[in-house]
Amino acid sequence: MLDSKHIKHFEKLVGTENMYSDKAHLIAYSYDATREKYEPDAVLFPRTEEDISEVLKYCNEHSIVIVPRGAGSGFTGGALPSTGGIVLALEKHMNKILEIDMENMVAIVQPGVINMDLQKAVEAVGLFYPPDPASQEYSTIGGNVAENAGGMRAAKYGITKDFVMALRAVLPNGEVIRSGKRTIKDVAGYNITGILIASEGTLAVTSEITLKLIPKPKLVKTAMGVFNSVNSAMEAVYKTMASGVVPVAMEFLDNLTIRAVEQTFNKGLPIEAGAILVTDVDGNLENDLDFQLAQIEKVFRENGCSEFKIAKDEAESADLWFARRNASPALSVYGSKKLNEDVTVPRSVLPELLEKFYAIAEKYDINIPCFGHTGDGNVHTNVMVDGSDPEQVKIAYKAIEEVFQATIDLGGTLSGEHGIGIAKAPYMKMAFSEAELTLFQTIKQAFDPNNILNPKKMGLE
Amino acid sequence: MLDSKHIKHFEKLVGTENMYSDKAHLIAYSYDATREKYEPDAVLFPRTEEDISEVLKYCNEHSIVIVPRGAGSGFTGGALPSTGGIVLALEKHMNKILEIDMENMVAIVQPGVINMDLQKAVEAVGLFYPPDPASQEYSTIGGNVAENAGGMRAAKYGITKDFVMALRAVLPNGEVIRSGKRTIKDVAGYNITGILIASEGTLAVTSEITLKLIPKPKLVKTAMGVFNSVNSAMEAVYKTMASGVVPVAMEFLDNLTIRAVEQTFNKGLPIEAGAILVTDVDGNLENDLDFQLAQIEKVFRENGCSEFKIAKDEAESADLWFARRNASPALSVYGSKKLNEDVTVPRSVLPELLEKFYAIAEKYDINIPCFGHTGDGNVHTNVMVDGSDPEQVKIAYKAIEEVFQATIDLGGTLSGEHGIGIAKAPYMKMAFSEAELTLFQTIKQAFDPNNILNPKKMGLE
Repeated sequence: MLDSKHIKHFEKLVGTENMYSDKAHLIAYSYDATREKYEPDAVLFPRTEEDISEVLKYCNEHSIVIVPRGAGSGFTGGALPSTGGIVLALEKHMNKILEIDMENMVAIVQPGVINMDLQKAVEAVGLFYPPDPASQEYSTIGGNVAENAGGMRAAKYGITKDFVMALRAVLPNGEVIRSGKRTIKDVAGYNITGILIASEGTLAVTSEITLKLIPKPKLVKTAMGVFNSVNSAMEAVYKTMASGVVPVAMEFLDNLTIRAVEQTFNKGLPIEAGAILVTDVDGNLENDLDFQLAQIEKVFRENGCSEFKIAKDEAESADLWFARRNASPALSVYGSKKLNEDVTVPRSVLPELLEKFYAIAEKYDINIPCFGHTGDGNVHTNVMVDGSDPEQVKIAYKAIEEVFQATIDLGGTLSGEHGIGIAKAPYMKMAFSEAELTLFQTIKQAFDPNNILNPKKMGLE
Repeated sequence: MLDSKHIKHFEKLVGTENMYSDKAHLIAYSYDATREKYEPDAVLFPRTEEDISEVLKYCNEHSIVIVPRGAGSGFTGGALPSTGGIVLALEKHMNKILEIDMENMVAIVQPGVINMDLQKAVEAVGLFYPPDPASQEYSTIGGNVAENAGGMRAAKYGITKDFVMALRAVLPNGEVIRSGKRTIKDVAGYNITGILIASEGTLAVTSEITLKLIPKPKLVKTAMGVFNSVNSAMEAVYKTMASGVVPVAMEFLDNLTIRAVEQTFNKGLPIEAGAILVTDVDGNLENDLDFQLAQIEKVFRENGCSEFKIAKDEAESADLWFARRNASPALSVYGSKKLNEDVTVPRSVLPELLEKFYAIAEKYDINIPCFGHTGDGNVHTNVMVDGSDPEQVKIAYKAIEEVFQATIDLGGTLSGEHGIGIAKAPYMKMAFSEAELTLFQTIKQAFDPNNILNPKKMGLE
C-alpha cells in the first residue's frame, strides 16, 4: 500500500485525473499477455517527459517501485508490477508521432505510439518501418524497444534495435538524457541506446524514440511450399537463405499446427504435410521478385517440396498467409494451457532442434506444435496440456525446461523476441554464466542503485 | 616504469617472446594515425583469450594500466598509452578467421583479423562483409568494433555495429563473458554487445567477434555527377536518398578538394565545379541497377547537375573513384598541418553545414577542404594550416572548435566513425550534458572499478 502522502504528492505532480488507486484501475493494469496478475498500488499517466522525470526523482528519493508500461501486450511479464509499486502507463498521453522527417527518412515518436499506427503513417508518405511483431496492432513502440521486438520481416530487415537511431530517456534519479542522433553514424560516447534496447524498463524510462525508416518497396509477392517432412522444410529454409536470396519473411507451420488450423477453420490445408513454408519477397521491379521466387522454388524443390504456389494477387496472398496468421489461436484444440516460447537458434540447426522438441513431446506424451519465423531461426514452440490437470501442468513445465536446454545446447537463445521478464527469469542460469549474470547485476546497480525501476525482472535481484 | 617483478610475471604468463620492454618495441607501439606519441612501459602479445584473461586479472590486482591495440590506425588516439602502462597488442597472434559459416551467413573472427582479409575471405565464397573504413587494408576488426568504424558503404549497409551479432570479451577482472548468439534475434539479458561496441577498449577486451554476412551482390555500377555549387550537390544528396533509391555509397568532393587532387595528379578534373558526387549502386539484376542509376540521374539533374557519367566497366569506375580515393593525401597542398574531423549531421542540413564551414574558413583566412560520406551525412572536414607556424596551429584549433559547434547546433555528432579517444575528449562537454557525462563515468566505473583499462579516454577520468 502506498502512503497517502505519496498519493497526494503524485496527484499534485500529474493532476488527479492522471493518478488512480481505485480498484478498477488497479485491476485494469494488473495483467499482460502472460495472463498472470499483480495489482499495482497506483497507476500514473504521465503527460510529458518532465512528468516522468518528476515521478522518478520522487520515487527514487522515497524508494517507491515504478514499472513502466506500454500496451501491456508482452508475453513475459515485463510490464507487470510483480513486486507492487506504481505502474507508469505511457499509452494514454505519450502516444504522439512527433515528426516524420522525409528528408532524412526518420520518425520521432513518443513511447506510447502503437506500432501499426506508425507503420500506416510512414507508408502513407512512401516510407517503411519494417519491425512487425505479431502484436503490431496494439503493442507500443516503447514496449517494442524495451523488449527489442522482432516479427516476421526480421529475416530480411532485422529487429527493433536495427531501427532505433536515438533515444531520450529518464534515469531513475530523474535526470533526462539523450543518446544518439538523427544520423546513421554517431560514435561519440558510450552507446547508451544499445544498452537501453531490450533492457525491459529496468534501467531507464524511454521518453522519445528516433527511428530509421527506409523507402517502401513497391512490390511484394507471396509463395508457399508444401513439404513431406519438417526436416526437409528446415533444410530448405537455411539453404534458401544461404543461396543468395533474402526473402522478407520465411515462416513455417509443422504438421500439428497445420492440422489444428484445418480442424478450426476448414481451409483445405494439406493435413498430411510435414510442414508448410510461407514466404514473402519484395522489391521495386517485377523481374527482381520473379528472380527471387525462382531461386526459392529451385531450392525448395531440391529439398523435398512437393507443391509450390505463387499468389497471383493480394487475395491469394492473404489466403496463403491465412494458416500462419491463425496458427496461434487454433492450437487450443490441443489443450487449454499453452506454454508458448520463442526460442531461436542458428538457422542451420533448425532440423535438429525440431527433432529434439518432438522427442521431448514423445517422452512426456504431450503435443508440442511449432510454427514461426524460421527465416531467422526463431521457432514458436507451444507446449500444450490440459490446464485443469495439475499433473499435466507440472509435466508442461518440465518439458519447457528441456526445450530451453535443447535450444541452448544447439547454440540458441532463451528468447528471440519476447524478452525474459518474470516468465523466463528462472531459466537465466541455464543460459548465462555466473560472470555474465554478475555483470547484468552490476549494470542494473550502476543505472538504478536504489532498485526502484521494474525490479526482479530478467533474473535480477 | 614497470616494476621488474611485474615484468617477470608477464614473461611467465605469455612467454618471453611475447613480452617486450626494450626501447625499439616501446617506440614501435607508441603511436597511431594521430601522429601523437606516448611510450608504453611494456608491450604484450597475448596468444589466447586465456592469456588476455590472466594479464587483465593481474593488472587489475596490481592497478597496472592496460591499453588494447589492433593495428594502431585510429585517428583519435584510442590505442595510445597516453597515461603509460602496458600495450596489449592483439594483431600478432589473435588474428585468425576462426570460421566462415556459410549456412548461417556468419563469420567468427579473432580481434586482430584485418578488415580486408575478412572481406576477401568471405567474398571468395559468395558472401559480403559491407563495413569498409578507409583503413580497411590495415585496420583490424577488433579496432573496427572498438571504434564502431564506418566507411563508404554505410549509406546502404550501415556500420560495424549493424554487423556484430555476438562477442566474447574479457572484463577488467579477468572474467570471460560472451554476449549474443549466431542468430539475428537474441533478446535474453542486457545487450552487452551494444554497449561494448564503440567503447574504445575502455570496458573490456574483445577476444572473439561473430559477424553477420550477407549474400554478395552480383553487380556494382559507378556514376559521377558534376555540380556548379556545393549547395546544390548537397541538396541532390538528400533528395536522392529520400527518392526511394538507396545507393551503396554517395561520396562528395568540394571545390578545394577537386583542385588539390587535380594539382597533385593531373587527371583532368573539372576544377571550376562546386562539387563532384560519386556514387555506387549494387544488386543482382542489370535492370535493377539501371533503374537506380536513372533515378539518381533524374534527381541529380533536377538539382543542378551539369554532367552525369556512368562508368562502362571496372576501369572507368576506378577512374571515377580516383579523385575521391586520393583526396586525403592531396590536401597537403594547403598546408603541412591537417586537422581532419569526421563530423556527421542529418543529411538534410548538409548544405547549411558546409556554408557554416566555409564561413569559418573565411573568418580565419584558412582553407577547410571537405569531402566524404555525404550519403550518411558524414563530412570529412580538413582544417589545413602551416604546421611550422605556432600562430596558424592555434588558429586551426580555434576553427575546429567552431566546426564542432556548428555541427552540434545542426543536430550532428562530434564523430561519425573515428571515435573520441584523446583527440576529441576536450570537446565532449560541448556535445553532452552533465547527466550524460556522469552516466558514461558510472558505466565505466561499473565495468572497470580500478580504472585499469584504457583510462582517460573519451573524456572519462
